[in-house]
Amino acid sequence: MVTTLEEQAALGSGASFWKTKAAFGLPALVLSDGPHGVRAQDAAVDHVGIAPSQPATCFPPAAGLSQSWDPELVSRVGQALAAEARHYGVGVLLGPGINIKRDPRAGRNFEYFSEDPHLTGALGAAWVEGLQSGGVGASVKHFAANNSETDRMRSDSVVDQRTLREIYLRGFEKVVREAKPWTVMAAYNRVNGEYACENRWLLTDVLRTEWGFDGVVLSDWGAVDDRVSSVAAGMDLEMPGGHRVSDRAVVAAVEAGVLDAADVTTAAANVTRLLERSRDASATRVPAVEFDTHHALARETAARSMVLLKNDGDVLPVAREGRIAVIGEFAQAPRFQGGGSSHVNAIRVDIPLDEIRELAPTAELTFAAGFGESGESAALRDEAVTAAGNSDTAIVFLGLAEHDESEGFDRTHIDIPGDQVELLRAVVAAQPRTVVVLSHGGVIRLAEIERLAPAIVDGALSGQAFGGGVADVLFGVVNPSGRTSETVPQRLEDVPAFLSFAGTGSEVRYTEGVFVGYRWYDARDLDVTFPFGHGLSYTSFAYRDLALDVIDGGLRVKVIVDNTGGQDGREVIQVYVGKRGSGVPRAPRELKAFANIAIAAGACETVVFDIPRADLAYWDETASAWVVEGGDYDVSVGASSRDIRVTGGAELVGDDMPRPLTERSTLGELMQHPVAGPMIASMGARQATQGASNDDAMGSDTAMMMAQIPLNRMVAFSGGQIGPEQIAGLLAMANAGGSGE
Amino acid sequence: MVTTLEEQAALGSGASFWKTKAAFGLPALVLSDGPHGVRAQDAAVDHVGIAPSQPATCFPPAAGLSQSWDPELVSRVGQALAAEARHYGVGVLLGPGINIKRDPRAGRNFEYFSEDPHLTGALGAAWVEGLQSGGVGASVKHFAANNSETDRMRSDSVVDQRTLREIYLRGFEKVVREAKPWTVMAAYNRVNGEYACENRWLLTDVLRTEWGFDGVVLSDWGAVDDRVSSVAAGMDLEMPGGHRVSDRAVVAAVEAGVLDAADVTTAAANVTRLLERSRDASATRVPAVEFDTHHALARETAARSMVLLKNDGDVLPVAREGRIAVIGEFAQAPRFQGGGSSHVNAIRVDIPLDEIRELAPTAELTFAAGFGESGESAALRDEAVTAAGNSDTAIVFLGLAEHDESEGFDRTHIDIPGDQVELLRAVVAAQPRTVVVLSHGGVIRLAEIERLAPAIVDGALSGQAFGGGVADVLFGVVNPSGRTSETVPQRLEDVPAFLSFAGTGSEVRYTEGVFVGYRWYDARDLDVTFPFGHGLSYTSFAYRDLALDVIDGGLRVKVIVDNTGGQDGREVIQVYVGKRGSGVPRAPRELKAFANIAIAAGACETVVFDIPRADLAYWDETASAWVVEGGDYDVSVGASSRDIRVTGGAELVGDDMPRPLTERSTLGELMQHPVAGPMIASMGARQATQGASNDDAMGSDTAMMMAQIPLNRMVAFSGGQIGPEQIAGLLAMANAGGSGE
Repeated sequence: MVTTLEEQAALGSGASFWKTKAAFGLPALVLSDGPHGVRAQDAAVDHVGIAPSQPATCFPPAAGLSQSWDPELVSRVGQALAAEARHYGVGVLLGPGINIKRDPRAGRNFEYFSEDPHLTGALGAAWVEGLQSGGVGASVKHFAANNSETDRMRSDSVVDQRTLREIYLRGFEKVVREAKPWTVMAAYNRVNGEYACENRWLLTDVLRTEWGFDGVVLSDWGAVDDRVSSVAAGMDLEMPGGHRVSDRAVVAAVEAGVLDAADVTTAAANVTRLLERSRDASATRVPAVEFDTHHALARETAARSMVLLKNDGDVLPVAREGRIAVIGEFAQAPRFQGGGSSHVNAIRVDIPLDEIRELAPTAELTFAAGFGESGESAALRDEAVTAAGNSDTAIVFLGLAEHDESEGFDRTHIDIPGDQVELLRAVVAAQPRTVVVLSHGGVIRLAEIERLAPAIVDGALSGQAFGGGVADVLFGVVNPSGRTSETVPQRLEDVPAFLSFAGTGSEVRYTEGVFVGYRWYDARDLDVTFPFGHGLSYTSFAYRDLALDVIDGGLRVKVIVDNTGGQDGREVIQVYVGKRGSGVPRAPRELKAFANIAIAAGACETVVFDIPRADLAYWDETASAWVVEGGDYDVSVGASSRDIRVTGGAELVGDDMPRPLTERSTLGELMQHPVAGPMIASMGARQATQGASNDDAMGSDTAMMMAQIPLNRMVAFSGGQIGPEQIAGLLAMANAGGSGE
Repeated sequence: MVTTLEEQAALGSGASFWKTKAAFGLPALVLSDGPHGVRAQDAAVDHVGIAPSQPATCFPPAAGLSQSWDPELVSRVGQALAAEARHYGVGVLLGPGINIKRDPRAGRNFEYFSEDPHLTGALGAAWVEGLQSGGVGASVKHFAANNSETDRMRSDSVVDQRTLREIYLRGFEKVVREAKPWTVMAAYNRVNGEYACENRWLLTDVLRTEWGFDGVVLSDWGAVDDRVSSVAAGMDLEMPGGHRVSDRAVVAAVEAGVLDAADVTTAAANVTRLLERSRDASATRVPAVEFDTHHALARETAARSMVLLKNDGDVLPVAREGRIAVIGEFAQAPRFQGGGSSHVNAIRVDIPLDEIRELAPTAELTFAAGFGESGESAALRDEAVTAAGNSDTAIVFLGLAEHDESEGFDRTHIDIPGDQVELLRAVVAAQPRTVVVLSHGGVIRLAEIERLAPAIVDGALSGQAFGGGVADVLFGVVNPSGRTSETVPQRLEDVPAFLSFAGTGSEVRYTEGVFVGYRWYDARDLDVTFPFGHGLSYTSFAYRDLALDVIDGGLRVKVIVDNTGGQDGREVIQVYVGKRGSGVPRAPRELKAFANIAIAAGACETVVFDIPRADLAYWDETASAWVVEGGDYDVSVGASSRDIRVTGGAELVGDDMPRPLTERSTLGELMQHPVAGPMIASMGARQATQGASNDDAMGSDTAMMMAQIPLNRMVAFSGGQIGPEQIAGLLAMANAGGSGE
């Protein structure tokens, strides 16, 4: 062990921008930005993606990757990332980013998986398992409630406990419990008043004590406001390092008695354990990376990340012959990743136009840019319309430019440039068989594009092999199976946090509570352009024979899915659960399980889901505990959150939460109490008002008013005829089980 | 003065259910439920409206009265109420109820004026002035944030400061400052964790210190949970009284040193001052009341409270001859007030059917009940359809029964019974000239009725003379001028607090913040069935020549309104103000002034509004102060919140809120600082990252990221090259004005 306080304190901050200190003969650990590629920097360093970095495979960012809805695929990406990290001597890759997409305007959404915590947790855990199986540590980030970029290093996320637990922490909990990440990254923002780095409840009580995390909590780069408070909270490693200021502050605080020396020792021990875990990665660089193999994986992943949003009249797949007009600048200068710390120096980039040509060598291809960076261009549009008119099919690449969205700022709207919509309108007028391909990090408004285009493929951001992947989908080499991981709303005004998103005065109130994403649109019964979980296929599937069982207090869901179309394909089967007549406000349906399975044409598969009882609980703020409500649950299984194919019901026994009567219990609660109720009835004490008319005159409305009166108010209402002593006696008897006298 | 602690404590609780104690030769004061009539009880007493009370005039409850949008009329009602109170020896009438209608489901909405605080404050102040001019004190209630009935004696209203100030307290503030009520009633609920009765911030800091209230704070009946804490908070008088338990607790608390004796003395002095103010009312009963005159006023008020929601094809006014079918049980058993403590023993009740017959003596009237209490009745409906088919005009009375809504519970939906809608559908099919007359306390969904009926008159609850008032409007004896005081949404799912209304576990979070009522529908651009402030007339008005001036930092708004129709009429001219590009989330339009004026056919009136600067401020939570933002304001003048006729803009100078730079100020704030900005530029310190490429390489996205970095984080980002001392020195120089070195 480190012996002196000074040495322990020093181990709690980095040696430089990307490196920890070495200790006990263990080599220093190099950390590097991720998550969809390794951003290893040599000379110049930065945390915002401006200085150069080593070439690496740029896999689909989470915005695209999440649309695969496939943990197995995500795990393979993690393994490939580990191999590249090991090549560059990186021992911890800073990912995955698993914050919830609270609002489509959030600048960093492209780095996150979903609006849903279950999907987020499943994909995040797979990513971590894949990466760490390759001997490289993950850093699950940004912990926690880091859901906007505006004033991000000061802003305070004000979130109620239930919402934190059910929405914003649940993904982290799943990843920590299932995948045991080596590190967790504490976020820039504050959570309910305290900086994430200084939030002991978050970093210690929840993360370590409840979830059993045994790794290192490191700070986001520059996130530490006060190192001493951070160490006290359970933040082990301040990054970046290279200065001694905060190490000295830690020593001084211990000497002054304001910081427990044990906290410093614990942090140093945690960092030491991390150095042990990463010893191989730090000591040995893997000499070569199979970049070609990784590119093939990137292409497979890109294709699997595409969502076929719409395909009216079977415009897709496109025939590999005839005349094809490829339109849009993004076809030759593809948009495939986002800006900021995750920006990868891609080792190779597929050009969509080239890949289309590659797959359809005998087709007559024409290309037209259609629009320019600087907005509308009538000449470019005319050229595109002519090309479209002279083709059998037009493929139009639309989307957001890199400067439209990035880490570091939030969007103020969710529109794509108007000239792109005008281009599409003109193209569709000239060529009804038009396919739109979309590239963007954050959700964009698609209401108008959906009205115009018969077919839409959403690539979100699909990494360096976007070009190959989209060609595979367009021509049917790959049968699309991606699903939206975020609702596409009709308009910005409909989104849950429309009026409160980035907050005021550095305070962001999560006013929509648990009603994030589809939970909101479903609860308020709002039309959406494309619902959560939506995605079409070139084949079709049917669902049947839903069977529900209660096993170990949880739910076993069994369903049979048939591939009723003419092609092999993958189906993403989604299980949503809702509580009928819940005592707390809840979404009608919450995703509780899903499966991504290949089914051959004409074949069927039986799929079984086990939903643990813990996943059916809600966070009871009064009890400060996860509680399963007793009663009827609705189980909905389908191909999207709004394409439910089979439904069933199950009854669960609730968790028993006995609450003793108190002087603030109401008359209604007293009457319903198993012991006190009959006692009161026999005492004839239902008369709550002085001299009021008899019971018969009391309507049910009045009875409801009476039922709300707390017991201690009976002193005043009875004019003192009932005294505090009598109430106390009554309570004692009731709570003792009625035996007292 | 009262001399002993015991005597002072005793004065702080009532002598009985409706009476205070007497003191210093001043007679005991009788309080009585209101607000739309005197509910004076003799023998049996209760606070929920079940025991008998003396006969009194039942004026329109606030749900109807508020639709008059006429402070002068409301003041006259207050005067009449005072006369009846004096007749029964009542010195304080428990009203007005001025809580904001946060959600249409709230059970007590019928007792409140509006979803808008300006309208609420204007009508509330007029009511108090009228009442108190008659020598009877008001009790402004329920203070505060008492906006639902569910678990009302324990529920905690969790509301942010800005929302409290701008929405829920603003009406109270206006009434207290302008009308100086004798008493304010502290509510049942808690406000941000503390019972209203124990909330010193509310009862003392805000009410007395800020607003200058010099009257008595009394408890709602049975609202005191802990008398000692209540006295410490500034609650002067516990009601009901008649027991000594809490008086003894107060004395014991003072003796134990946990309650300041001065607080008890202050409360006793406040009660004594109230006894002085009410001395005449307590000592002398006015022998007679002109009930006939009051009934005439009730009829005038009822007619002025009717809102002509729709009048396609000029179905209204109805001709006083020919065949008229009157349909609906409410035409002979009118619904005109709500249930609970405000329930008045009406001295006389107009029957609509009789009043229609009275005004159209030569018309051929037929009546059909149409529906029964117990739901659909095919026979009743058939009879009504036959009557409608054999008439020239059908008048259909629809609405909610008294048991559908009341004090003491909240509604779970906002529909009227389905059999009434079916009746209407059948009647309209038989008789296109159909008028619907509505009676209800809370807002009801009207989307379907609006589609079916060519004409709709909304009476809300209009008091005992509803029958006469509606006949006056139906036949054009009175030209309707009422306006909705609450938005009629398309559906319950659209309302702001749909998902959070009555809360969970006794906690009600006001998640929609300041976006209550039309503020929400406008901000989210939602369709509504009838907007706030809507109401038609039998004549028409045009607006012109809007002129705006900034006077004393506030706005003077001048507009000319022409009566362009053929009949005399009243117009309610509404002035809404919005802040373009506000730094805080705001509604597009907020009501800031209105005028209710009579304009003869063909005439015009020039109307001038002075909006004080204080009314243009928003509550700045960071500064804890009312602040007027500098910049452009939009002024919209019109006949409803969505029928804007003339618009203009004005520029206001903002309140100066200098904020010194701190170590948590960001680089962006530093660069924009008038002193520090140029200093930094000259120091060339814009390079925030170690060894990063030069400025030219930094795009605007990166610059935005950099601008968010707090100064104290520069220590880490510079690897210690910038130390805390340098940052402190920089701040000292900047905050000193740049002179230091």
